[in-house]
Amino acid sequence: MTATKLKVGILGASGYTGAELVRLLVRHPGVEIALLTADRHAGKPLGDVFPHLARLVLPDLVKIDDADWSKLDFIFCCLPHATTQKVIAGLPETLKICDLSADFRLRDTAVYAATYGGEHQAPQLQKQAVYGLTEAYRDEVAGARLVANPGCYTTAAELPLMPLLEGGLVSHEGIIIDAKSGISGAGRAEKQGSLHTEVSEGIHAYAVGTHRHAPEIEQELAVAAGKPVTVTFTPHLMPMNRGILATIYVSLAAGADAEDLRVALAARYDPEPFVHVLPAGRSPATRDVRGSNHCLLGVFPDRVPGRAILLAAIDNLVKGASGQAIQNLNVMCGLPEVMGLEQEALFP
Amino acid sequence: MTATKLKVGILGASGYTGAELVRLLVRHPGVEIALLTADRHAGKPLGDVFPHLARLVLPDLVKIDDADWSKLDFIFCCLPHATTQKVIAGLPETLKICDLSADFRLRDTAVYAATYGGEHQAPQLQKQAVYGLTEAYRDEVAGARLVANPGCYTTAAELPLMPLLEGGLVSHEGIIIDAKSGISGAGRAEKQGSLHTEVSEGIHAYAVGTHRHAPEIEQELAVAAGKPVTVTFTPHLMPMNRGILATIYVSLAAGADAEDLRVALAARYDPEPFVHVLPAGRSPATRDVRGSNHCLLGVFPDRVPGRAILLAAIDNLVKGASGQAIQNLNVMCGLPEVMGLEQEALFP
Amino acid sequence: MTATKLKVGILGASGYTGAELVRLLVRHPGVEIALLTADRHAGKPLGDVFPHLARLVLPDLVKIDDADWSKLDFIFCCLPHATTQKVIAGLPETLKICDLSADFRLRDTAVYAATYGGEHQAPQLQKQAVYGLTEAYRDEVAGARLVANPGCYTTAAELPLMPLLEGGLVSHEGIIIDAKSGISGAGRAEKQGSLHTEVSEGIHAYAVGTHRHAPEIEQELAVAAGKPVTVTFTPHLMPMNRGILATIYVSLAAGADAEDLRVALAARYDPEPFVHVLPAGRSPATRDVRGSNHCLLGVFPDRVPGRAILLAAIDNLVKGASGQAIQNLNVMCGLPEVMGLEQEALFP
Amino acid sequence: MTATKLKVGILGASGYTGAELVRLLVRHPGVEIALLTADRHAGKPLGDVFPHLARLVLPDLVKIDDADWSKLDFIFCCLPHATTQKVIAGLPETLKICDLSADFRLRDTAVYAATYGGEHQAPQLQKQAVYGLTEAYRDEVAGARLVANPGCYTTAAELPLMPLLEGGLVSHEGIIIDAKSGISGAGRAEKQGSLHTEVSEGIHAYAVGTHRHAPEIEQELAVAAGKPVTVTFTPHLMPMNRGILATIYVSLAAGADAEDLRVALAARYDPEPFVHVLPAGRSPATRDVRGSNHCLLGVFPDRVPGRAILLAAIDNLVKGASGQAIQNLNVMCGLPEVMGLEQEALFP
Repeated sequence: MTATKLKVGILGASGYTGAELVRLLVRHPGVEIALLTADRHAGKPLGDVFPHLARLVLPDLVKIDDADWSKLDFIFCCLPHATTQKVIAGLPETLKICDLSADFRLRDTAVYAATYGGEHQAPQLQKQAVYGLTEAYRDEVAGARLVANPGCYTTAAELPLMPLLEGGLVSHEGIIIDAKSGISGAGRAEKQGSLHTEVSEGIHAYAVGTHRHAPEIEQELAVAAGKPVTVTFTPHLMPMNRGILATIYVSLAAGADAEDLRVALAARYDPEPFVHVLPAGRSPATRDVRGSNHCLLGVFPDRVPGRAILLAAIDNLVKGASGQAIQNLNVMCGLPEVMGLEQEALFP
Repeated sequence: MTATKLKVGILGASGYTGAELVRLLVRHPGVEIALLTADRHAGKPLGDVFPHLARLVLPDLVKIDDADWSKLDFIFCCLPHATTQKVIAGLPETLKICDLSADFRLRDTAVYAATYGGEHQAPQLQKQAVYGLTEAYRDEVAGARLVANPGCYTTAAELPLMPLLEGGLVSHEGIIIDAKSGISGAGRAEKQGSLHTEVSEGIHAYAVGTHRHAPEIEQELAVAAGKPVTVTFTPHLMPMNRGILATIYVSLAAGADAEDLRVALAARYDPEPFVHVLPAGRSPATRDVRGSNHCLLGVFPDRVPGRAILLAAIDNLVKGASGQAIQNLNVMCGLPEVMGLEQEALFP
Repeated sequence: MTATKLKVGILGASGYTGAELVRLLVRHPGVEIALLTADRHAGKPLGDVFPHLARLVLPDLVKIDDADWSKLDFIFCCLPHATTQKVIAGLPETLKICDLSADFRLRDTAVYAATYGGEHQAPQLQKQAVYGLTEAYRDEVAGARLVANPGCYTTAAELPLMPLLEGGLVSHEGIIIDAKSGISGAGRAEKQGSLHTEVSEGIHAYAVGTHRHAPEIEQELAVAAGKPVTVTFTPHLMPMNRGILATIYVSLAAGADAEDLRVALAARYDPEPFVHVLPAGRSPATRDVRGSNHCLLGVFPDRVPGRAILLAAIDNLVKGASGQAIQNLNVMCGLPEVMGLEQEALFP
Repeated sequence: MTATKLKVGILGASGYTGAELVRLLVRHPGVEIALLTADRHAGKPLGDVFPHLARLVLPDLVKIDDADWSKLDFIFCCLPHATTQKVIAGLPETLKICDLSADFRLRDTAVYAATYGGEHQAPQLQKQAVYGLTEAYRDEVAGARLVANPGCYTTAAELPLMPLLEGGLVSHEGIIIDAKSGISGAGRAEKQGSLHTEVSEGIHAYAVGTHRHAPEIEQELAVAAGKPVTVTFTPHLMPMNRGILATIYVSLAAGADAEDLRVALAARYDPEPFVHVLPAGRSPATRDVRGSNHCLLGVFPDRVPGRAILLAAIDNLVKGASGQAIQNLNVMCGLPEVMGLEQEALFP
């Protein structure tokens, strides 16, 4: 199969999502890593930045300006938002791209500007971009040149909510998403708030009422509901490297109960390789998806009549970022969707 | 002051709440520990069970049946529910008691039976019991012989919600309490689910829709609201030894906004030594109350109009258990309420 | 390849080493899991015991007495010591076996009896057993019916020390092994000392001077040195799920310096797929082998003349147990040694 | 007592040792905090930098150049090394000082220059400085104007070793100190190596053979032994906020056994309030000193004849830094040595 391997590049390979792409792609039989960029670390082997990857035979890190695009088939872009737009706008048309930043997730560039604090620099490109929640947009992803990989929190919120809104089983009003994230979501930046001393043995909410993933969640829930949706969304930071648990509170549509929701989700995701609805009474735990591309969903009746509680667990670096990006590559390039993503969770 | 020190006993001293009482009481100038019981460990010094307390001069552990009640003034009861009723029913009338179990928290013994799965064995005693959320029931606590110390989750939920319901600032309907707890809340019992391997690096919800603290929360919120209240309550277990963070979602009363709530709570708790309302925009973190009897409250506007988000952080073993129990002892016995409880949080 | 897959059974599949074998074997192209035993959980699917493995299609757990050996080629035995001897003695001669217990590691059954507190019940079988430190005994493993998989601490100690003793580069006297282990080494048993509350935020030594892995280490170092060796060995328990770091203090042979040791180890392990000697000045970290079968070695000059410091990092559940067991299966059955073991470490 | 309270200043109050001094001093009945400096945060209340201290009534942070020394009695200096020398050299002679940096610990300024990479700027002051391992130098500390508070690792190493060397019970040769530290020892600086993602779930050695605390340890062991001592010292970084465990390997003097060592240490430290020798067979755990000024010592026979293993556990921020500094203040100012330091460990 070597002859036909896709040649992929990773822009911004010195962050955690870049490292996670490498971890997964080196065991992906259809792909060869042909480019790794990291401006601050140009000239070094990746192993100098990530010792756990030091044994791999990989191209050295280069500056993005020194990249030779001519030999590549596919780009994963792990750059910060805003920078991303400019870089991707300058890539050859022949390259397919999966972007892990927020830059192409919001279809309405006015919402982008309001959320991310700056005019969008590549609005034409935005129009071509496909939102990459693979289970929801598989066909569109298959035909896309540019896929906007969803946010980590948004993936955990959209997977349980979209089918239920589409099916009219829950109200589009009053949805509350209480999300708990591991610290790798904050990246490898040297911030006081990410120190072990500050994070371990504690939990707190942040960006309460203002987190940038809320408009993205609302965009997709509105598509599913067929009308505008406004959600309550509270992210929390907790002492865990990997994982997001979203606890979601919903009002049931008239006549529906929690078991109806569970059955509907189970039917919807039965054919899906990475989304799994647990039996009634089972609560998803992030430890059971650690390091894997799986998403676990649970549904419980609330003690308040007419309400239900949804639970979704993912690994924020895999299904919430690099794993889903590879899932999108597979779909975009006609490879089996699960290729390179079949490992089980690492527990304990 | 030695001559007038209260002589206290701790029943069930081999659990974490018992150890925490000892840690705090040995620096309490108005109290002398005169009895420690632990049936399984009778005959041992407490330091054999809790090496961090090995240097203290304390009475050895005895069986509860061997206790000499005649020399005691006050009892902390840290026994399991159900057992507790029988033990307390047999104590001399001269003893004041603060009970840390659930046995006397629910005023309606039918609710107790439904929640804890057995008829109450001491309904007459229940009628005398005062619910020990000190800030809410200070006067009643002062006159009580038997105080039912609130649950850990319930303390975190009631402190922010009760004044707002009393003041008519939030709706009594649709209250959602999403709570995250450290693992010491599960006690020192040898359970698979409490192992480091199972708890660290993960989070999950448990007892979804069915946790026993919900009826207790509803009891008190109903008192505050003046009408029955049903709440949504989801506890989560996370890798942290101490701490509870409650994230609470409420509907605002007509005309109120989040800042009104914050100001009202700040005014209510301004004279209180242990409850602190943070400035607008500040999010309470459990690390900032670790090991202390303080409760931090925050209030945020929701992005959904007409709604607000309340945050409460406590140490589950202190304000959520042993610290509040000592606060109640102080009030019951006419000592300064803060006595023995003035240490700051341990951070990092 | 399906037609020729080896049919393997795992005895004692409800512990962490059993689960880890399953996690790795389900992606092993040469193996099919055909039997899983767990007496306490017989009749259940493995996913009831280990939810992270619930999606796999596997045989249900059965009692060991109900196992049908006739269709199997290979057995991994994850039973407690003492029990193991009896079970393995009763297996058909046609089965190859890799035993993860301590029962067949000690060649001298008198040492076994002194260390594990009971006469060996299968001394004849002991004589056939091959010690399964793959890098040291590859040829013997290839011809063995029964392989005794080394202990976790012993693997971390023997990999750096054996070549240096064989090469006469370090003294066989005064070797000190200070080892730090994650908590999964204590297994899934419900012990107070394994609770999150007891383990997190702390470290302590245990079994100081008396740990059962010391005689096993000495047995192998004696082989390498050509004379009896007595070592100092202190294990420590720390808040980490996976990982062992061994810090080893040695006296240099006359004329040797630390860099000589590093170069010799690098040469020895250069052809090995799983043992890697770091460049001078680099310190092995357990995070860089988490979830992988790799061992990282580092060598440093001591500030005391004539002495050096060796560092070895492994994942105790992989190279220290289940991964090395699969490595031995591969060698025993003529499969490529790295088959099923090529995944990189999971970091962060 | 208010009228006679010592007025103390803390220079560099925005680091963890500064915060820890505040936590302890606010409950110290003989002291009033009258000055807090932090150049980067001048003008802020301390609660902006350390929310866990926000409720205290304290002077705002000021620049060191704006400090009014005239009203102070005592200074704790928590500044970086090198800076410290200059600042302390400029303080009025009337002020007593406890310095928590390394600047005045090494009596030989040539050793200082070699270890810390720069000429000492205040060699005259160095001559006046007293090394503040309180238990070893109590009388000198009592008469000192300037006390050099020992390092965290050094405290853990010297407390067990100094009496044994003085007593001739162990050899001064071949001492090996393998130390494991929590991450607060790295301070609050924003370093990649201190991130939760990098530290949790792992352990590694650092500064192997080159750590700056080794010459300090050797200085004091030489005093105890009456001759030069060179030690092997390896520090490790592990996922724990507070705590150091030192595992120390020694050769016994002729005729001595491990129990002799234990008995000698127990006798030596019997009158000491903060150093405790455990019964034979008990292993010190850092969890049992968390947040306290206590040091726990254990002694075990090695399985290698003629050798023993010493274990010492402290909280690096308390007995290893701020607690010992307050102990020194008490001695320097004629207050009871335990004043303000009597709280028990926080467990769990």
